[in-house]
Amino acid sequence: MDYIVFKNENALYWECNYSCDNAIFLKLGSDRYFITDGRYTIDAKESVKDANVITTNDLLLKVIELLKKHKIKKITIDPKEWDILSYKRLKDSVRTKIKFKPNFSHLKRMVKSEKEIELLQKAVIIGKKSFKKIAKEILKDPNRDEYSLNFMAESILRDFGKRDISFEPILAISENAAKPHAMPTNRVLKKGDLILLDAGVKYKRYCSDRTRTAFFDGEELNFKYKQKFSNSLIQKAYDTVLKAHDKAIKKARSGMKAKEIDKIARDVIEKAGFGKYFVHSTGHGVGLDIHEMPYISSKSETIIEDGMVFTIEPGIYIEGEFGIRIEDMVVMQNSRAKIL
Amino acid sequence: MDYIVFKNENALYWECNYSCDNAIFLKLGSDRYFITDGRYTIDAKESVKDANVITTNDLLLKVIELLKKHKIKKITIDPKEWDILSYKRLKDSVRTKIKFKPNFSHLKRMVKSEKEIELLQKAVIIGKKSFKKIAKEILKDPNRDEYSLNFMAESILRDFGKRDISFEPILAISENAAKPHAMPTNRVLKKGDLILLDAGVKYKRYCSDRTRTAFFDGEELNFKYKQKFSNSLIQKAYDTVLKAHDKAIKKARSGMKAKEIDKIARDVIEKAGFGKYFVHSTGHGVGLDIHEMPYISSKSETIIEDGMVFTIEPGIYIEGEFGIRIEDMVVMQNSRAKIL
Repeated sequence: MDYIVFKNENALYWECNYSCDNAIFLKLGSDRYFITDGRYTIDAKESVKDANVITTNDLLLKVIELLKKHKIKKITIDPKEWDILSYKRLKDSVRTKIKFKPNFSHLKRMVKSEKEIELLQKAVIIGKKSFKKIAKEILKDPNRDEYSLNFMAESILRDFGKRDISFEPILAISENAAKPHAMPTNRVLKKGDLILLDAGVKYKRYCSDRTRTAFFDGEELNFKYKQKFSNSLIQKAYDTVLKAHDKAIKKARSGMKAKEIDKIARDVIEKAGFGKYFVHSTGHGVGLDIHEMPYISSKSETIIEDGMVFTIEPGIYIEGEFGIRIEDMVVMQNSRAKIL
Repeated sequence: MDYIVFKNENALYWECNYSCDNAIFLKLGSDRYFITDGRYTIDAKESVKDANVITTNDLLLKVIELLKKHKIKKITIDPKEWDILSYKRLKDSVRTKIKFKPNFSHLKRMVKSEKEIELLQKAVIIGKKSFKKIAKEILKDPNRDEYSLNFMAESILRDFGKRDISFEPILAISENAAKPHAMPTNRVLKKGDLILLDAGVKYKRYCSDRTRTAFFDGEELNFKYKQKFSNSLIQKAYDTVLKAHDKAIKKARSGMKAKEIDKIARDVIEKAGFGKYFVHSTGHGVGLDIHEMPYISSKSETIIEDGMVFTIEPGIYIEGEFGIRIEDMVVMQNSRAKIL
């Protein structure tokens, strides 16, 4: 299959070990081209693997020239990647038949290599250590608002400027944790609160993703699975989420459809009477992108395979009261899910 | 003109005072619609001004229904905003003629209102104060590498988590400043170095942007225009950049083409023999987006008008040695450029 990767940094990086914010990758038979502009010539020539680096002011014109020169009959593109203006120009300039294949790059990247799994594992370990440091730092000075707590968490995750993070961390207190994508507020932490922390770091561009929900009794705090809440409804919800998390991981098998894994977690939560409070999917793939295929949702027909890496992250959110989520990344190996 | 704003947060915000990461705005005659999904219903109903909020799982289907219901003959879209897949679905579902107008939202936002200029002015003042604080903080502990210096600068600009920034700041030392978009390294600051700081903050979503280049003599540091370097070539380059900056601001007039302003700055630098080291445009518009129209480049035919806000930021970059840039934001008023 001949194809074009259009200005998508992670897809470009995956193809040839380098990316920048203005580049197109072209695979024509055994010829591979990385086309970028003059600002990146030096860096690209140093870092691009297995592709010819071409520098030009008009990237798309170079694509058109190459398609003509190689007399390419059919080329595949991802229609989600292209804006209309660029596509129209391409289409009107070549005789090549342009075939749409949505997500083709994501589909190729869905099953990870051994090397990729190693990098993801390292990212997860760094992320895990950061959670420990954040708990320690909260205990040093708990009397802070979410702005300050989030900033502190981000500083630790970023190792004070030396590391990239997968996304802006979410550190939300009690009722603010009820929004799955909570933004920080001036709400100050106090004894008896619940803390939800959802965060990840990057290791050599590969992402980690992790969520823990913890009880703060004024004295102690840890982001382990075992938590004791003072409120019995919260405790029941927490135990339900943990059970859904554990069961989905234990029962997941290669060969299942993604939606079957979603159902395992969802059933536990529904059975406990919290069904309508589990407002999102059970998980998503993680790799160079923090959200990628496979999506572990109630509609996903994707067949799970060994080598896939995704999150299991059931949750219960009761508006105005609390939110709970427990998330781990797993890799499918020997047909089973192993926590990274 | 009837038009659609497709999932562009700043354009959505400009139309109706609210945005989220999944929304479409539709203007049909005097009817205005903000279409989003259920996650944002509450927030949108609270904040959207002058538009009907519609919540749906399928945003584009709602657009199609509204175009049919209102029997719209012609609708304008920005072809740079739309992916092919969404566009094809729209086109194949309606009889409406779809007119392409690249950048139409940016064109509307190019001349700022009094209110917008006030917000931009406030952002600039906060940014300016941050520069002072950063200089002070460097002096407290100058023996740091670029990672640490950048992180410190970003922390101050973000007011330790309470404020948004326009972009990741650039704090580059001497030879690293030679890359206009330098990434931090482990290079440690030392006596006799030059420091280039390019940074901005947001105030109520409006951006500031500012660059200063300063000499660090081991004792003192300030980000004022007047700088004394120990190296005479750097001094000459600095004085040239400052002269280009001052002259472009002094001579800019409403009614000029943007490229004429670029030429004023470029001529100063060329005359001093540094022409080939001024590798970028003289400036860019600033508003809700950090880079927007008008672009003050050698090719821009845009006619400058009162109410436009843009940067003047000439620079000289000598690879492996040093980089210098001085940048201010100006607003055109009574036909002249006033520094914000």
